[in-house]
Amino acid sequence: MKPTPIKKEIVDNAIHEYGIANFANASIREVKNIAALAEQRSGVEFIKLEMGIPGLPAAQEGVKAQIEALKHGVASMYPSIHGEKVIKEATSRFIKAFMDIDISPEGCLPTVGSMQGTFASFVTCSQADATKNTVLFLDPGFSAQKVQLQIQKVPYISFDIYNYRGKLLRDKLESYLKLGNICAIIYSNPNNPTWACLREEELQAIGELAEQYDTIVIEDLAYFAMDFRSDLGEPFKPPYQPTVARYTRNYILHLSGSKAFSYAGERISMACISDNLFHRHYTTLSTRYEGLPFGMVYCMRILYGLSSGTSHSAQYALAAIFNAACDGTYKFRDDILTYGERARRMKAIFTKHNFIIPYDKDMDQPIADGFYFTIGYPNMSGDVLAKELMYYGVSAICLSTTGSELPGMRICTSFIRDDQYDELDRRMAIFAENHPIS
Amino acid sequence: MKPTPIKKEIVDNAIHEYGIANFANASIREVKNIAALAEQRSGVEFIKLEMGIPGLPAAQEGVKAQIEALKHGVASMYPSIHGEKVIKEATSRFIKAFMDIDISPEGCLPTVGSMQGTFASFVTCSQADATKNTVLFLDPGFSAQKVQLQIQKVPYISFDIYNYRGKLLRDKLESYLKLGNICAIIYSNPNNPTWACLREEELQAIGELAEQYDTIVIEDLAYFAMDFRSDLGEPFKPPYQPTVARYTRNYILHLSGSKAFSYAGERISMACISDNLFHRHYTTLSTRYEGLPFGMVYCMRILYGLSSGTSHSAQYALAAIFNAACDGTYKFRDDILTYGERARRMKAIFTKHNFIIPYDKDMDQPIADGFYFTIGYPNMSGDVLAKELMYYGVSAICLSTTGSELPGMRICTSFIRDDQYDELDRRMAIFAENHPIS
Repeated sequence: MKPTPIKKEIVDNAIHEYGIANFANASIREVKNIAALAEQRSGVEFIKLEMGIPGLPAAQEGVKAQIEALKHGVASMYPSIHGEKVIKEATSRFIKAFMDIDISPEGCLPTVGSMQGTFASFVTCSQADATKNTVLFLDPGFSAQKVQLQIQKVPYISFDIYNYRGKLLRDKLESYLKLGNICAIIYSNPNNPTWACLREEELQAIGELAEQYDTIVIEDLAYFAMDFRSDLGEPFKPPYQPTVARYTRNYILHLSGSKAFSYAGERISMACISDNLFHRHYTTLSTRYEGLPFGMVYCMRILYGLSSGTSHSAQYALAAIFNAACDGTYKFRDDILTYGERARRMKAIFTKHNFIIPYDKDMDQPIADGFYFTIGYPNMSGDVLAKELMYYGVSAICLSTTGSELPGMRICTSFIRDDQYDELDRRMAIFAENHPIS
Repeated sequence: MKPTPIKKEIVDNAIHEYGIANFANASIREVKNIAALAEQRSGVEFIKLEMGIPGLPAAQEGVKAQIEALKHGVASMYPSIHGEKVIKEATSRFIKAFMDIDISPEGCLPTVGSMQGTFASFVTCSQADATKNTVLFLDPGFSAQKVQLQIQKVPYISFDIYNYRGKLLRDKLESYLKLGNICAIIYSNPNNPTWACLREEELQAIGELAEQYDTIVIEDLAYFAMDFRSDLGEPFKPPYQPTVARYTRNYILHLSGSKAFSYAGERISMACISDNLFHRHYTTLSTRYEGLPFGMVYCMRILYGLSSGTSHSAQYALAAIFNAACDGTYKFRDDILTYGERARRMKAIFTKHNFIIPYDKDMDQPIADGFYFTIGYPNMSGDVLAKELMYYGVSAICLSTTGSELPGMRICTSFIRDDQYDELDRRMAIFAENHPIS
């Protein structure tokens, strides 16, 4: 065995000190913290592939507008719990420009990142109808959303859609909806962690079944326009970002500033509730919250109770970004195309050293190159691989935390630097040498 | 009857359009929105006494530091879920300087306003010990905190401490703690809405009973150093902000940027967990959250699940404010003394026109002048008064929403302008004329 780039005991001790019983279950933040500690103690830099710190500078239109807003004194004033007018209108316009969907400004509500957005959506959906209390995940997915339900003590079920793509999805989905207890269906598109992208026929099946079984679709658009196989970055021109909003009246879109606009630090996102859902009265929900309709409970009760609104200045930032994108003066897709290129280069390195891509196909096409991809190693379980990679100074999260049934890891392309590919190649060569495949 | 400054039907219609069945139950945001609508339709400006929009400019040390942080690119990077080092250390220092209490930086966690802070505290405390699921409020209090528990489906009980001040508090409190199901005790000090300030002997009783019955004290310090009868604004010198932290090892302090530093817009606050509580393992909590101790569950699970952290740039703002206050270069108390003066002037106007101050005494002293005070009108119920005042262009929230047993309203001094006192005097004169007392 060649020595590993990081001494095993350094990693093992760090894991122990963070009180993690099983590293395969560690969250992104835990992996990040353990990597930071091991890095500090070993003096060897980790190649950090666990979390989406954008690695790109924040959209400058946003930074400028946020600084202007601070200079104008917004820091002293509570933000409107509905959101400032400027961001509500900009969001409605952005959704029209890049999705060709109509949502009134009224239903566009700022949230403290999409994390707060999905937390609020889970609360509101699970309390809407007394007969429906369970959230259905189209997995693999973002593990933090399951932590949110754990916090809320709301039950969930999930299935890995890898084997139920295309025409198979409708029947599989219906088998769950038939249970009658599904309050919401959630997925991210493009998918975190596999980067699979749902097709129109799949979105149509989800939307139509949501109508038929009266459930709410929570569409997490964290990676907006990042299926780089199409140019989704031209305002008011097709092709548009695919969405379930074409197929159901009961949906919430979560539009994050973090990835597409590299604005993760300021925790700003929009929850966009369809006009129909916003004004709908659910008996259980209305009884619980003084007769209010869904959208008003969502903002006046849930978002209010969660944080009394979202950073005032950050709302001006995202409004400026959306408007510049709609005006065509800010080509946000150009900025983030680099993630696709990084995926291509990293996949080449990993596969050269015997790694496989567990989620390799997007139906009949190879998986696209984007913000995430998956890796596995022949005859190695996910939890062993997770820890082993740490010894080689590569931090990433285990697919088992994402609801995946395949052994492997999620690789995020956001944080690797140009000068790290050679080092990754070198470390993975040692990995392959130390783990020969028969 | 003299005509009211605002036509009754304008107010009544606005209340109806917001779907409020009983105006006495309206939240601050709802009162604000209804006042805005009535103002727009009547063309008559409201005197807005419902919410703490600081009305003062934000602490400039904060604005400058936040702008600098944005220029340095923090907008792209996720904030640490533990909080940035600079704010953790500044908070620990601030608590030492103005409270003479030691809390390690580790336990000082940024939250999206104290609203997110208390939400997280309620979740963590109510899930800590399976035998204790109920929160005890020392009322009157901030109604939004009860909305938080409604969202969480966590039970609470409360009592109005007005009649249980001083030596009476211990026995009253113990009668609840004896039930054995109290997971946390919460109060704000100074009190919202009455502006009563707990004495040392009362804090001692709370702390000692929390030890005896093993419950957690959540101390909401939203109005830090704002008992203007003492000069609590000198760093590292007595007198210090009174706190339960002197009498128990199990506490969480919520230190808000919104009121003392007029930084409400950016939603920044600190949850400060005592060293003992931070490291404590609760069996139920640890079982639920992978063996983690209280403090790690609080940040790595709950704060993570709620919003993945707090605005990166705002953390730099509050850190700069805290450090300038500790250095003695920023005299934050001087900036906010004006609230006391406003309370004095408004109380004089209201009482001149037959109003009373329901919470008039702080034990053996008259209630202090500060951010809030209470008003009532002879022989008039709180819900009638709430609506009546709206007809006179005065918006405020009803005491019934605060857990108070006395009829009346909460008056916030933050938003009245110097040019509005004469108008308030004129309108209250009409009010008194239209509502003669026998």
